[in-house]
Amino acid sequence: MPLTAYRATIDPAWIDYNGHLRDAYYGLIFSYAIDDVMDQLGLDAPYRDRTSCTLYTLELHLHFLHEVKASDELTVQSLILDADHKRLHAGSEFRCGRLAEPVAIAEAMLLHVRQGAMPATASFPKDVELRLQQLKLSPDAIAAFGPQSRRIEIRRR
Amino acid sequence: MPLTAYRATIDPAWIDYNGHLRDAYYGLIFSYAIDDVMDQLGLDAPYRDRTSCTLYTLELHLHFLHEVKASDELTVQSLILDADHKRLHAGSEFRCGRLAEPVAIAEAMLLHVRQGAMPATASFPKDVELRLQQLKLSPDAIAAFGPQSRRIEIRRR
Repeated sequence: MPLTAYRATIDPAWIDYNGHLRDAYYGLIFSYAIDDVMDQLGLDAPYRDRTSCTLYTLELHLHFLHEVKASDELTVQSLILDADHKRLHAGSEFRCGRLAEPVAIAEAMLLHVRQGAMPATASFPKDVELRLQQLKLSPDAIAAFGPQSRRIEIRRR
Repeated sequence: MPLTAYRATIDPAWIDYNGHLRDAYYGLIFSYAIDDVMDQLGLDAPYRDRTSCTLYTLELHLHFLHEVKASDELTVQSLILDADHKRLHAGSEFRCGRLAEPVAIAEAMLLHVRQGAMPATASFPKDVELRLQQLKLSPDAIAAFGPQSRRIEIRRR
């Protein structure tokens, strides 16, 4: 069973002076989509309450590919690009009905952490680790996911 | 004259179920900090109204280095890492009073665009291009800025 896509409606307050979705709100939609992934993996609120374990975001990359307008509805399909016993490399494709290609791509590295006076990394429960390995994309699908994260720099010819 | 730092107060609504600043709101604070940089560069609301030109964000990377709590005040110092006649590679260091090191690092690639039926890239006004070259960090300062953007991946020893 692949991950279910997350659907987002654009709050009019998220439109900026450029008349399109402000960059940061792609990040907020992605953050909510990851919460939804956590629910699907069983890393949900009851799990977090019971274990004090949760995911912390270490790094986030966003590619803004097309403008999103107030009238758009977004579908965010999250994908498991890689995982080990404590880390999850997740990617998401943002799509809207107007266009065939994604309007944005997000990638994040997330770490499973036990909270407390001093938060510490913790291994995923075995069933979550197994589910992540089952969900992990094939090498071909990973190669097709893109644009892939990279160093940001002005490339001069 | 270097760029003035942007100060942000944490809205309590930005704290998530983990008891810290939700990842996406670092992005929102950065977005506001870039608006402030635009004002300092003269790419402000009157400029945008007069010319139909603005900045579009192409790509954004965030490193989350320390948790930020509701009681923190953040200072965001933006830096010009690179620029050409139409592109701006900006970095920002997020600091709070409790810690010596930055709590987060952001990097973005921004493009100067003329809006209209079909938005198109446009050259910066000459004075803005000159100001950007003057603000551009030295190679040593660029090397000290970090962690620098990179491909996201689980690195295995």
